[in-house]
Amino acid sequence: MIEKVNVAHKFSLFNEHWSPKIVAELNGQQVKLAKLHGPFVWHHHDDGDELFLVIQGRLRMEFRDRQVWLEEGELLVVPRGIEHRPVADEEVQVLLFEPAGTLNTGNTVGALTVAEPEHM
Amino acid sequence: MIEKVNVAHKFSLFNEHWSPKIVAELNGQQVKLAKLHGPFVWHHHDDGDELFLVIQGRLRMEFRDRQVWLEEGELLVVPRGIEHRPVADEEVQVLLFEPAGTLNTGNTVGALTVAEPEHM
Repeated sequence: MIEKVNVAHKFSLFNEHWSPKIVAELNGQQVKLAKLHGPFVWHHHDDGDELFLVIQGRLRMEFRDRQVWLEEGELLVVPRGIEHRPVADEEVQVLLFEPAGTLNTGNTVGALTVAEPEHM
Repeated sequence: MIEKVNVAHKFSLFNEHWSPKIVAELNGQQVKLAKLHGPFVWHHHDDGDELFLVIQGRLRMEFRDRQVWLEEGELLVVPRGIEHRPVADEEVQVLLFEPAGTLNTGNTVGALTVAEPEHM
């Protein structure tokens, strides 16, 4: 069954921060939606590149040597192996695209780790 | 170099219909932007699932047995092997996500085939 996904509707169904929800899957990759607020943890992903598309709000992606501000309608690919830290001064809604099974905290495990993201 | 992509800006750079532009690449997949107008050709992709996210306008995705209307902010995954035909009664802007090298007309080749999509 081919079902469309309304991104805004999906975002209306949850409020947790830093807890990506899987909304679609294709070619071994997953589309996830997440609400972010505050600073995340420094991490990297060994085995996958990660795409961030800002749906609402303004996201700062910190790298060790610089930072990139992402506005609504802007996307960024963080290549595998590159340390990064997303920071949301106010709540941000993002769409993520990354390999199925990617751990949100990458090479680190801690309070913000979501081992098994919910399908929504 | 990690460069962000402003989707609206990229769309301002071209006017052709049915000519996807590659704006990012990750994990062997490509993010493409396309402007659609009118009916496309019936086709399927043997080797890849294809994601459509409507950025502006309203897209009708026809399948052999039904159709799905996609509004702004809605996405749909068309699984590999499934015949489909996008139709845009008025101009639509879409973001595509699919394996690198996916031919826009899939198993068919014709006037609308873009053999080597431009990077933008």
